[in-house]
This record gives sequence, structure tokens and C-alpha cells, in this order.
Amino acid sequence: CSHTSASYTDSSDDETSPRDKQQKNSKGNGDFCIKNIKQADFGRREIEIAEQEMPALMALRKRAQGEKPLAGAKVVGCTHITAQTAVLMETLSALGAQCRWAACNIYSTQNEVAAALAEGGFSVFAWKGESEDDFWWCIDRCVNLEGWQPNMILDDGGDLTHWIYKKYPNMFKKIKGIVEESVTGVHRLYQLSKAGKLCVPAMNVNDSVTKQKFDNLYCCRESILDGLKRTTDVMFGGKQVVVCGYGEVGKGCCAALKAMGSIVYVTEIDPICALQACMDGFRLVKLNEVIRQVDIVITCTGNKNVVVREYLDRMKNGCIVCNMGHSNTEIDVASLRTPELTWERVRSQVDHVIWPDGKRIVLLAEGRLLNLSCSTVPTFVLSITATTQALALIELYNAPEGRYKQDVYLLPKKMGKRHSPPTPSFSVSLYPSFSLALPPPTLPPSALFQMSMWPVFTCLRSMPTSLS
Amino acid sequence: CSHTSASYTDSSDDETSPRDKQQKNSKGNGDFCIKNIKQADFGRREIEIAEQEMPALMALRKRAQGEKPLAGAKVVGCTHITAQTAVLMETLSALGAQCRWAACNIYSTQNEVAAALAEGGFSVFAWKGESEDDFWWCIDRCVNLEGWQPNMILDDGGDLTHWIYKKYPNMFKKIKGIVEESVTGVHRLYQLSKAGKLCVPAMNVNDSVTKQKFDNLYCCRESILDGLKRTTDVMFGGKQVVVCGYGEVGKGCCAALKAMGSIVYVTEIDPICALQACMDGFRLVKLNEVIRQVDIVITCTGNKNVVVREYLDRMKNGCIVCNMGHSNTEIDVASLRTPELTWERVRSQVDHVIWPDGKRIVLLAEGRLLNLSCSTVPTFVLSITATTQALALIELYNAPEGRYKQDVYLLPKKMGKRHSPPTPSFSVSLYPSFSLALPPPTLPPSALFQMSMWPVFTCLRSMPTSLS
Amino acid sequence: CSHTSASYTDSSDDETSPRDKQQKNSKGNGDFCIKNIKQADFGRREIEIAEQEMPALMALRKRAQGEKPLAGAKVVGCTHITAQTAVLMETLSALGAQCRWAACNIYSTQNEVAAALAEGGFSVFAWKGESEDDFWWCIDRCVNLEGWQPNMILDDGGDLTHWIYKKYPNMFKKIKGIVEESVTGVHRLYQLSKAGKLCVPAMNVNDSVTKQKFDNLYCCRESILDGLKRTTDVMFGGKQVVVCGYGEVGKGCCAALKAMGSIVYVTEIDPICALQACMDGFRLVKLNEVIRQVDIVITCTGNKNVVVREYLDRMKNGCIVCNMGHSNTEIDVASLRTPELTWERVRSQVDHVIWPDGKRIVLLAEGRLLNLSCSTVPTFVLSITATTQALALIELYNAPEGRYKQDVYLLPKKMGKRHSPPTPSFSVSLYPSFSLALPPPTLPPSALFQMSMWPVFTCLRSMPTSLS
Amino acid sequence: CSHTSASYTDSSDDETSPRDKQQKNSKGNGDFCIKNIKQADFGRREIEIAEQEMPALMALRKRAQGEKPLAGAKVVGCTHITAQTAVLMETLSALGAQCRWAACNIYSTQNEVAAALAEGGFSVFAWKGESEDDFWWCIDRCVNLEGWQPNMILDDGGDLTHWIYKKYPNMFKKIKGIVEESVTGVHRLYQLSKAGKLCVPAMNVNDSVTKQKFDNLYCCRESILDGLKRTTDVMFGGKQVVVCGYGEVGKGCCAALKAMGSIVYVTEIDPICALQACMDGFRLVKLNEVIRQVDIVITCTGNKNVVVREYLDRMKNGCIVCNMGHSNTEIDVASLRTPELTWERVRSQVDHVIWPDGKRIVLLAEGRLLNLSCSTVPTFVLSITATTQALALIELYNAPEGRYKQDVYLLPKKMGKRHSPPTPSFSVSLYPSFSLALPPPTLPPSALFQMSMWPVFTCLRSMPTSLS
Repeated sequence: CSHTSASYTDSSDDETSPRDKQQKNSKGNGDFCIKNIKQADFGRREIEIAEQEMPALMALRKRAQGEKPLAGAKVVGCTHITAQTAVLMETLSALGAQCRWAACNIYSTQNEVAAALAEGGFSVFAWKGESEDDFWWCIDRCVNLEGWQPNMILDDGGDLTHWIYKKYPNMFKKIKGIVEESVTGVHRLYQLSKAGKLCVPAMNVNDSVTKQKFDNLYCCRESILDGLKRTTDVMFGGKQVVVCGYGEVGKGCCAALKAMGSIVYVTEIDPICALQACMDGFRLVKLNEVIRQVDIVITCTGNKNVVVREYLDRMKNGCIVCNMGHSNTEIDVASLRTPELTWERVRSQVDHVIWPDGKRIVLLAEGRLLNLSCSTVPTFVLSITATTQALALIELYNAPEGRYKQDVYLLPKKMGKRHSPPTPSFSVSLYPSFSLALPPPTLPPSALFQMSMWPVFTCLRSMPTSLS
Repeated sequence: CSHTSASYTDSSDDETSPRDKQQKNSKGNGDFCIKNIKQADFGRREIEIAEQEMPALMALRKRAQGEKPLAGAKVVGCTHITAQTAVLMETLSALGAQCRWAACNIYSTQNEVAAALAEGGFSVFAWKGESEDDFWWCIDRCVNLEGWQPNMILDDGGDLTHWIYKKYPNMFKKIKGIVEESVTGVHRLYQLSKAGKLCVPAMNVNDSVTKQKFDNLYCCRESILDGLKRTTDVMFGGKQVVVCGYGEVGKGCCAALKAMGSIVYVTEIDPICALQACMDGFRLVKLNEVIRQVDIVITCTGNKNVVVREYLDRMKNGCIVCNMGHSNTEIDVASLRTPELTWERVRSQVDHVIWPDGKRIVLLAEGRLLNLSCSTVPTFVLSITATTQALALIELYNAPEGRYKQDVYLLPKKMGKRHSPPTPSFSVSLYPSFSLALPPPTLPPSALFQMSMWPVFTCLRSMPTSLS
Repeated sequence: CSHTSASYTDSSDDETSPRDKQQKNSKGNGDFCIKNIKQADFGRREIEIAEQEMPALMALRKRAQGEKPLAGAKVVGCTHITAQTAVLMETLSALGAQCRWAACNIYSTQNEVAAALAEGGFSVFAWKGESEDDFWWCIDRCVNLEGWQPNMILDDGGDLTHWIYKKYPNMFKKIKGIVEESVTGVHRLYQLSKAGKLCVPAMNVNDSVTKQKFDNLYCCRESILDGLKRTTDVMFGGKQVVVCGYGEVGKGCCAALKAMGSIVYVTEIDPICALQACMDGFRLVKLNEVIRQVDIVITCTGNKNVVVREYLDRMKNGCIVCNMGHSNTEIDVASLRTPELTWERVRSQVDHVIWPDGKRIVLLAEGRLLNLSCSTVPTFVLSITATTQALALIELYNAPEGRYKQDVYLLPKKMGKRHSPPTPSFSVSLYPSFSLALPPPTLPPSALFQMSMWPVFTCLRSMPTSLS
Repeated sequence: CSHTSASYTDSSDDETSPRDKQQKNSKGNGDFCIKNIKQADFGRREIEIAEQEMPALMALRKRAQGEKPLAGAKVVGCTHITAQTAVLMETLSALGAQCRWAACNIYSTQNEVAAALAEGGFSVFAWKGESEDDFWWCIDRCVNLEGWQPNMILDDGGDLTHWIYKKYPNMFKKIKGIVEESVTGVHRLYQLSKAGKLCVPAMNVNDSVTKQKFDNLYCCRESILDGLKRTTDVMFGGKQVVVCGYGEVGKGCCAALKAMGSIVYVTEIDPICALQACMDGFRLVKLNEVIRQVDIVITCTGNKNVVVREYLDRMKNGCIVCNMGHSNTEIDVASLRTPELTWERVRSQVDHVIWPDGKRIVLLAEGRLLNLSCSTVPTFVLSITATTQALALIELYNAPEGRYKQDVYLLPKKMGKRHSPPTPSFSVSLYPSFSLALPPPTLPPSALFQMSMWPVFTCLRSMPTSLS
């Protein structure tokens, strides 16, 4: 699992709930709740590894720490607690912010990293394997503290925002803005806005300029291979694979598997994407035409019940089934929970589902996202998102009265459009010391003011390029 | 040249201007002006070859010829006169239209095709190598005819539209609409519209849904290889190439040359495109870093003077220089017209420019578009555009009073966006017999009404797919 | 590690040496020595997973188990003890052989698999983390048994053969032959043969027809990605990589990384391979030209000290260094064991080596083979080798007196040569019931007699092909 | 056509046989027989273009012209008369040789090049479109000259050698050796040798070290695209293609078409090549499974009648059929010469064969080699062969008495084998001034003596490499 891949030391059988333990770091600070403070050293090494691949964030940290553009900011955050998040939190801290943090998913905390953060003085409330009750308890501990009120929210999924709306609506009076990263969270914000209930400005980081290409195409091109290898050790060469859906995720999966020597079929209902698949050399099929012969089935449609029981019944023995799409319901896993089928857990994230005649299919991550469950999101990609989050916080926190209304703001979305006049987005008069130094001198002046480009520029500097 | 590649029989040295000849086809009809009616048979074969690769247009012809949706339409056209255009014209005719046609470029007429059209009864006024005066004379002959007035315009570049505005403004009273295909022509229409001078509805076919991907990415991926081979026979394997610009055209060029074993460098000023180049495995450079070492220089930036004299001076002996971009000024060819440099025409479209020290560079098509001058645009791609043009004519001609104002209408532009709610464009209540049969039953109902998808669907049917 | 990737249950801290334990399986049999018999169930599942990807071996098992071509064979084996080996051993057993087995590497035993084998009645003497003394003790336990003498040897590396030569030379009187898989072991056999000391026939399985392409090109194309991801989670897109050596291994590494969007440089001293690299689109460099700028360095030359301290000193911060070649000395790791450098073990198989100025390089597997240490060899590939081993055992065991002398025999080596007259190798009159049914009827009759093709045919049957 | 691609000026309708004309060049020399001496200027430009892409040969010319290693050599040659051959002939001349030359194929002479050679003083006897009688007359004119006897033969196909054997057997007394380039010619030489009738040493240049990879894999990877485009302008993206045979030629075709977005199927009977096709991601089929659905059929098996009438009958309308293999009989073209089928020549090298129901297939080059008929062999590739021919002439001419017997000598054949001990072939004590300077200093000393590597080294120097 992305978030557990590094948890090699985490085999302890300590079953005591973290909530029941008395916890203190080496400096006597106890304002946190995590699994095991002793893992801090190991977590620190993971954070150091992550720093190597997050050049944009480290550059931001270096540049802005003198001026402390977040001085006075009290950020409450709710995200996956990973080494990459730790680099973000320590950057925010270097820029002057105070941070309190909970996990946005009950399984996704890297306990060692949480330990390293707690040891470093951060108020972290998170561990791997929280209960539902633990989950909300942790969030509450972040916000419900005497003498401390957050003035910024960094959310991933909207649960933290939702909790404050529900329990502490008055808190919004002091809150300058929300930065939200996920599809779901952004959707919730738009609903609030539509209903006239959004009471602070919000930044939609999900639809940032680089997310579609990076989080989807380039990232999935690598994680489909990684996820399949780590779980099944399957050889790709010569395998027949059907990829359901030819959006950015599907394009990435198809390109990678084709390069490894698989024979790839595509299903697609959108005519443009279908034609793209054809022009890229993939045979367009209906799932039922190839389901009997393929070795691997991958879903990335964003739709429900793409692989239904009927198809699962017809797959050949040993067929691997996994999901790379947005939803957990692309594979109708529920339909496999019937008495005549035997489930056998053969490895972590790998189940054999066995038919009465002995046929078995290999189901990965129980149909959840393979790239999150069984692979890692490259730090490099997370770095871009994390830098954008930091910049959005800086902007919202420093924006003059009235620049942002109680609305959801978008970063410029244009992808692959060249020569378009740059739309100076929210960043024109941004915290000024940035704009000066950011872009390489070879870029057109208009680019100087596109703050949302900054993470991209910084990435480019670490690339084999001469732009910088 | 795209438009001359088939002109194998065209070596005649007949210097008499077509305007000075008495012309008649085998049925005694003389309402045309072309180079040589005797080439009609050869042109007919070229048209038949083209029909093979234009499934969408042939399907449209077949489907609609019973109902004659263009009955009564008098279409005046001004486009490249090629085999593909001939298939379009004969389709329009099958749908009930009368056609009169001129060339939109003085060099681009395939004389044999023009002959076949004239022999078939079309009023065509075009030949390869028209003078400026001939050009406007031909256009005028199309529109200025006693007892016949056009009611539809099909233009490519806006010259025909411009001529009517200038000479016969009253003609617009009977004209139901303009269909325009080129960037330039569309730009002119928007200017007219902005100035309040557009007096009929216009359809912008240039920005149709498939154009960006097909005319650029997929098409250039093939034509860059074709254009270089036909002119220079260069081996691609092991060559060092710099591609200036990583938009859709650059992406296509880079992908093709990489696949052929070239080592490809990219220059790019847009940060997103630059990052895409990096993630696709191309080394990002400044032109001056690699100009001394590369074997081939390709421009596709859309900018002016990308390859200036200074760079040309520093290229190595034998370096090939060509342009795949929109503009003819990406290579500063004018700077090479100086006394100390010797020009030697070594083949059609190939010049050696020789420096005093004996160094020679190989300049293709004098810096004009390689893919138009030295390669062919695949009929398959032209088929999509031509079908869209035909559909736009049908729609504008049949639209009920008031559906279209005196404005420029766009086809839906979304590319690669999946799951977006289809914007029922101009076609919702389109000429109804189409909508019934078009989309395959597996498509979502909303798609039924996206007329602009029809050419794509029809293409898909000729693809290795099971959608239809 | 290839051999530990599945050892998820193996976190026990039981430090008692297996040699000191009283061991029995559930049937009371105690003729084995392994880590923990309780892991047998988990190991059985791993074996079942492996069976799915070993179609050739399973087909052989199915076909030959009626006739028991190895009835009476007493095979002593010394190989990696993995799930794939278990499938081989159980196949040999199904064909009639008795087996006793030790590990050929002190780290490479999958304890769970050893447990499953012991539980299934095999006499296995192996565990992960043997001492040097344990290693020879285990081998000795395989051969030194009252009332049982081996008549066949299956070796990987030559240690078992060596041990018998040294301790029990008389045993060779009853031994019908040796099947050896490794480069080293084959080298030793040729030396013995040259010295006139080889006293039984031997089969060189290492140089079998498919090994070069499969174990090298196709296998490394996948394992380079897998090995790098599992250890470093590095994103490949946009990274600069230098691959030292463009033999089959290098070709595989380069193809994979290029496909993932890396910019790949190649060093090569052989002119033919160098020209191939050029024609495949890789920039040929000397290591010192790019060593400062690359993100990843991969060695696969087969030579010593390709990456010496001088180069390591000049690498940039965060550079990843690993070895995919035959030898463990391609990277001069010894030169890094100096006082001014700090080593930090950040994960299993991952060391940070830190320079006094803080620069750190990421050294994988301490310079040992990445594909063995940090990735897995796909079962599919191992299947071909294992099937060849089984066939070689069958042939040597059943060969009529005098067919094989005291020499090393080669399987036909021709690779990629088409239409060559098949050299009926050792298999012409092979155990006859095979030859009848093996090849698909579409193959030329001559192929019927190429036994070494059998594993390939069987693989093809599991491929997307219509040959069978 | 490869040999006519440059013949733009050659549209003259002069039907007088060159044999009947009085011919003189501008210096009054008339010892040649060609089509039209007036085309010399155009031919000279073609030769200059070719020189750009023949670095090895030009380097050889430069290096050796001072020492004149061929001084006194009287070379009679019989090859394709192309710009590349002209560069070879002028190099031989610069090295001291006298040359007389005829064409090895009645269609393959570039008339302009022949003119340029004649103008430059070479005794060339060749024109495009010779009759059978002309062919032998030209050869005879090369050898049957009073006061001049050849002492070296450079042959391509063996016709010249055959003629001398038949008509002037005594000539062999003065002949020092034969250099032969073609499969057929080499085959004839081996037959002579076997029969004890070979009376001079011969060099087999056909099987030189680089030929397999370059003339096949790398060359066909480019020429399949070029040949298809020039004849049909077909778009590759989305097309379904079946490639018959997966040897080096097939591998090149498949790689190129896959990269262009075609869906490629492979037929193959050799199991190793079949498995390679699978591992490279191609679907292995029998021809009859896909023949109804594919858009393009390409043969490269080296076998006869791969595409028989039955398959041709079942192809779909518009299917393109062509041959890239060695033999002209892979497609059973003869079976199409039946009354019910109509042949229509639509372009040079392109026939439509039309069935009674109107279905037409597009047959290229009447089933002859597409890459020779409709594409060009890149000069770069020809350069390697031509340089090898020149070196072989130098070696045979300068070899001390007795080094070579009356036998056929092979250049080292090893391909892609690295680290093999270099077999110092015939070149150890070769014309000594070469060996000194040739190889880059980084190469192992043993390489110094591999003369056959020289063309490769020289190519590498023109590549993006730092070896030199």
C-alpha cells in the first residue's frame, strides 16, 4: 500500500488503542496521539527520502522562510499522513504556520511518519487502522482546543470542513479560507456555494493545471506496472490485457503495458476517446468479446459496475482483476460475496476467488484503487500538488480584504494549450517577493504572473532542461 | 507536394493559359476552365482511390441521396482542388446541391482531378500555377453567372467570402450561411462579426472536435516521416533531431522520430508543454545548445523567426531544416537570400544553401509547410473534415428560420474530456432522418444528438472496433 | 528480494537455529530441516500461485505422470528454494523421482515454501539466513544418508557437485548425469572436463535456446522497473538515466526506461552494440560526460569496476546506483567503505552513502544484482528454465548406454535464426512418448525432434496464439 | 522506385536505343554507353547528396588517396548504377583503380547518375530499361576490350562472374579476386567452390557483420512506412495489419507500424520467433483468422506462396498487399492473372485487382520487393556495404601470395555477441596504414585488428557518440 510500503518496522502486535495510551515525545510534549513514538527515527528517514524528490516544496521552504508569509497562520489539516505530507507540514511550519493534523483515511497513516512529526513537535492525531469513532475523535482533537482556533483549513475529502460546519460553525468567522484537494471535497464545496452556505473563500486545488496529466496519465503509466508486480509478480510480456476506459488513466495504463509487450484491448463508449484508442494502435472491443481470453482486466472508466458478475463468471482461470478508476464500484465485488464462491487471501491485497469448478480469479485490493492500495504515488507527483496547496494557503492568507468572495476559486485549467494568452489568475499581486524570482528569464513576461505555474517551473528546474 | 503527388502525367509543356483555350468536355459542356480535359481518366482513378479512405463521406452520400437534403442548394466553393475535395463535391451533388468551385491556392490544384470533375459536369475553375490575376478571375467565374446565384458558401481561407463582400454584397440576401474551414478564414469571420458586418450565419469547421488531434497529432506523426523521406531519403535511425515546439504537432513529430530511432531534443517556452516533453522522455534544450550537433531541425512553434540566420550559420554541414508549424516564417528564409550564400535546387522542394566555406544545409520547401508541400495529408483525416463540412452545409441549409443568427457558430470543442455532459450543439433538431440511425446503440442517449460526433462515429465503424 | 517478497508472515523473532530444533511434519516425518513447519499453508498458496504461471511444467507433469519417466531416479538438488522450485520438485516427484534438496544461496530460501515442501514429504534442508557452516551442513544432509544414494544431480552454481567430488567421489559411480543451470557451475564443469576429471555426462542448461532472450532481454525489461520502484519509489518520467552496457540486459533496461519517459544514455565499448544503441535512439556517451547530471546509474556490462569511486564522487545528490549485470563488482562498492563516508540503511536493500558535504547517493542491494535482490524473476520465465531442467533430467536418466560421454552437452543455441535446418540435438531418440504429441501440427516435421523447443512450444500454447 | 526516385528529369520520350547512338562526353571521350549525357549535371547533384550520407566511404577516400592502395587495380563491376555506387566508384578511382562498370539489373540504372559518371570519365555501360540482349552486351563491353584486362571483379548477383567464366575463362589468370555482395551471387560462388571450379579467392560481403541488422531490421523499419506512403498515401493510425514472418525484416515492419498506431498481427512458424513476437506484444495468428478484417498484408517470410489466391479472394475491399521478403513469390501473383479479375494500373507500382463483385485489392510492385521497388534504401545503410566492398577489394588486391586460396572467405558474422574474443579475420596484417588510426583509443586492443569493424567505427564517428 502506498501508505504502508515503508512500514517495515510496523509488525508490532501492540493492540492497545493509541487513545488509551499516555504519550510524550522526547521533549515532554504530549499534544498528539499516534501509534508508537519509538518509530520516529525510521519515520525521519522516510521524510528525508521524500525531501529528495520534492524539489518544488523544498525550494519554496528555502525561499520563503525568511519572510514567513504564513506567520500567524493556524492551519488545521486533514490529509493522508505520509512522508510527503510531512514535508508539506514542515514547510508550512518553516513559513511561519502552526499546524494541527488528522488523517483523512482510517488506513492511510504511515505510523512512523506520524511518530517523526510528533517527535518534531507537531500535533498529529492519526494512526493506521483507526475505527470510525477514532477518525472523528482525531479530527475533533485538531480543532477543539482551548485557546487555539484555526484560521486556515487544508482538507482532502471535505470531512474536516464538514465537521467544523456541523460542530463549530462559529469557527468560520476567523477562518480566512479553505484549500481542498479532492474531487469529493471540491464537489461538496460547490454544493455549499450553490446553496449559498459557503461562508469563506475556497481554493479548488483538485483541478489545478497539472493534476490531470500528472496524477492520471504520467502517474498511472508507472503505478499500473508497480501495482501489478508487487501483488502478483506477473510477467507482462505476451499477456493479453483489457483496459476498460481510455481517459487519461486508461491512456497511461495502455501505454505502459504496450511498452512491456502486453497485447492490450480497450473498451470505451466515448467516441473521441475511442477514436484516440484506435489511432494509438489499440483494438477497440466490447468486454464480452475478450473476457474469456484475457489474462488481466483493468477498469478505469469512472463508471459503476463495469465488470459485473457475468463477466467474472466467464474469465479464465488465473485472470487478474483490478481497478485503477475513481470509484470503488467499477468491479462489482459485492456480487462475488456469495456462498458458492470461496475467497482465499493469498497475500496482502490479493484474494483468490474460487469457483466451484476450481477456477480462480485474482482480485486485487478488493476492487479498490490499485494505485493507492498496492503501489505508491511517486513523491515527485505529490510534490506538485503539495506545493500548489502551500501556495494556495499563502495566497488566501495574504489576500487583501475583498479579493476573494465566499466562492470556490479555480486555478487556470488549460492543459496542453500553447500560445494562449496567460490568464493572470489569482496571483497577479500575490505575496510579492515571489513573482520576482520565479520564472526563468527566457519565459514571456506574461508568465511572470502566473502563480499556478510556479510548481511547474520548479519541477522543470530539476529536470533535464536548460530553461532555468 | 500533397496536391501534386499524383500528377505523374502532368509533365506537359503546354504553356497556353487555360483562360485562352476553348474547353469542352465529352458531353459538349464548356462551363469550366481547367488545364487539360484529357487527364480526366487519370483523375477519375485518383478520386476512386480517395473514396476508399473516406468511409464517412461515402456513408453520408449513400444514406442521404434518397432524401436529397441539399436539393435546391447552390453551393459556391473555394478550396484546394484535390481528389478528396472531388469526393466531397460529388457527395454534395448526390445530396441535391449544384456546385461551382475555384481553388483557394494557386499551386494546390491537381489538374487531373479538376479534369475529372469538369468531365463529370462540375463547373470548376482552377489549375496548378495560376497567377494572382487568374486566381481572382476563377473565383469570379464561380459567382458571377447570369441566372445563377449561390445560396451557400463553402470557403477555405476566406478569399471567396471576401470577394463576394467586396464585389457582390447583395448576393448575401440569398445566402443562407457560410462554412469556413481555415484558421485565417475563421479569424476573418470573427472580425466581421465583431464589427457587426457579418450578415449571414457562419459555421467554424476549423475548431471542430477532431481537428486538433487529427490534423495535428496523428497526421503529423506520419507526415513528418513521409515529408523527410520523399525529399531527402534520410535514414532516421541514429540521427539527432531538434524539434522546436511541443504542441500537438511537435508531439506527433517527436513520437514518430523517437520510434524510428532518432535522438530527439525539444525546445519549448510554455512550461506545461515543456514538462510534458520531459515526462515523455525528451531532453529539453535551448536551440543554441544543440544547433551545432543536430542532423535535422524541425520547427512547429507557431512563432516567427524561431530559426534565425545565426542558427543557420552554426548548423553542421548537411543539416536538414524544415517547418511543420502554422506559419511560413518560423525559419528566417529571407536571411538566407544574401550574396555570399549560393542556392542550389537539387530536387523539387529541396534546396542546398551553400556557405562560402562549402558547408551546405538542406532546406525543404523553402521553409513552407513540409506536410503540405512534401507529404500528403492522409485522405482518412481529410475525410473527417470534409464530412463535417457537408454536415454543416446540410444543417445551415435546413435550419428553421431564426435558429442561427448572424454569428459564428462553433462545434463542440471538448477533446479527450470524458463523461462531460454532451452539449447538444447545433444539431439537436437537425435534419431528422440522420439522428435516428447514426449512433451505435451502446452509446448514451445524449450522444444521439451530437451531430458533430457523426463523422467520428462513421470513422469508428471503419476501425477495428465492435462499437457499431 | 525475489525470494522474500512473499515472506509476509516471516517476522518471527525466533532465533533458535533450525539445526537445534526437533522438527516433524503433520504426518510425523522428520527428515528435513527448515525454519518453521507452521508456515506450510502459506507456502502452499505461494506454490499454487506459481503453478498458474508455469504452464509448461504443469503440462509436463500431466503428460508424463502416467509413464513415470523418472521412476527410480534419486535426484539430489541444490537450487534457490522458491515457489517455482517447488513446482519443479513436485513435478519431478510426479514423474517418479525421489528428491532431496538444499539451497544454493544462504539468503534465497522462501521459508514458507520450504515448510510446504517439508509438509508435503520432501526432504528439504534450507532456511533463509544460513551460516556458511549451515550451508554445507544442509548440502551434506542431502547426500549423506544411509541406504540412499543419488543417481542424478541438479545443481545451480556447482557447490553440490563440488561437495560430492570432494567428500564422496565414489558416489559418481551410480550417478547418471549432472544438470547445471548457472554460468559459474557450467564454467566449473568445463574446467573439470578440460582437466579430464569429469566422470559423468553433464547438461549445460544455462546456454539453452531461450535463456539469453528470456532471462535477459524480456526479464530485465520488467525487473529494472520493478526493482527500482520497490526500493526507491522513484518516478521514471523525466529522469536522466545512464545504462552502462548495451547487451541483452542493457537493451531490456533501456527499452523499459525509455517507454516510461526517462532520458536514457548508453555507454558501450563493443562497436556493434554501440551502433545498435545509436540506431535504437540512445545517445552514446562516456560515463564521465554525464555522471554529474544523471539521476540513475545502471550497470550491465559484465565487467569489473565500471562505476569507480571517482564517478561516485562526482554523482549528484540523490543519484541512485544499481547493478543489473552478471558480476557483483561492476560498482566498486568496496571503495565506498572509507571513514569519511557515512552509510545509512534506509530500507531493506537501500543504503544512503553520505559524503562529508551532505551529498548522498542511493546504493541498491550493495551493488549486488538488483533483479535478484530487489525484484522478482517472473515465474513465467523461470518456468522455461525449470522445464528444460526437467527434460534434461529425463533425457540423461533414460539415455541408452553410450549416448552421452563424460562431457558437457549443449542444447542448441540458435536464437532468432529462422529457417535454419534444425540441429536434432540430444533429443532425437528421446524418451519416445513425448515427441509424438508435442509440436503443433503446423510446424515442420524437423521440429518434431527438437526437444529443447518443447518448453517454448508449451509456452506458446499459453500465449495469445493460434499455433496450438 | 529506389533507383528512379530521383529521375525527375527523365521524362524524355527518346526511343532510340543507346547502343545506336554516337556518344561523347564534354572532353570527347566516348568509351561508355548510356541514355543521355545531357543529364550529367543533375546526376552530379544526386551524387553530391549521396556523399553527405556516406561518411565511411568519404573517410576512406580521404585517408587512402595519398597511398593509392588500389594503384594498378583494374576493377570490372556489375552492380545497380545509383548515386551510391557512383560514390563507391569515385572512391575506388581516388584510391588508384581503373573501373569499367555495367548494371546488374535492367531496370535499376539511374540514367542521370550514369551520365555524370560518363561525363567524369568512367566507362559505364548501362541504362534504365535494357533488354536482355542489352544487358549481356553491356557486361561484355566492360570486359572485352583490347589492351585492357580486369584484375579484380566486383559483382552483385554473379552475372558478371558467370559471363567471364563462360566467355573468357582465361581472364581469371590475371584476376586476384572476386568481391560478391548478393545472396544469389554468394550461393553461386559456394557452388563453384564445392565443385572445385572456383579459380580465384572470393569475398562474401553479403554475410558481413552489419548486414543482417542494417539491411533488414533498421532499414525495413523505415522503408515499410516509406514504401506504403509513396504508393498509397494510406494513414497508418488505426489500421489493422498482418505481417507474415517475424525475422529481422518482420521485426522492423512490426515495430514501425506499431509505433504509427497500427494494430499489428503476426504469423510465424518458427517457435522462437513466434515467442519473440508474443513477448513484443503482437498477437500471433494464422493468416486465415484475420485475412477478412485486415487493411494491409505484408509478407516477409522468405517462403513461397504465403499469400495464395484463396486468401486474396477473402480480403476485404481496399486491402493493400505487398512483399518485403527475399523472394518475389511470397504473394501468389500469378494466381491473379485470370480472366475474371481486372487489373488496373492506378499509379506507378500500384495495381488495383478487381473482382467481379467490384471488390478491389491494392497490389504493390506486382509482389516484388516493396523496399526496393517503392522506397529507397537509405544511403547511410548502403554506405556500410559499399565501404566493406572497397575494403575487401583493397585486401584481396594487396594480400601477399598465398594468404587466400581459391575459396570463399567470410567476414566475421557475430551479431550482438558482446565480450566474445574477436576473431581476427582476414585483416590482421591488412594494408597496414589503416589499422593504426582506425579505432578509437577506448576500444580494446583486439578490436584494432578487426578490419570488418572499420565501416562500423566510421559510422559511429558520424553518430551522436563520444567514442571517437
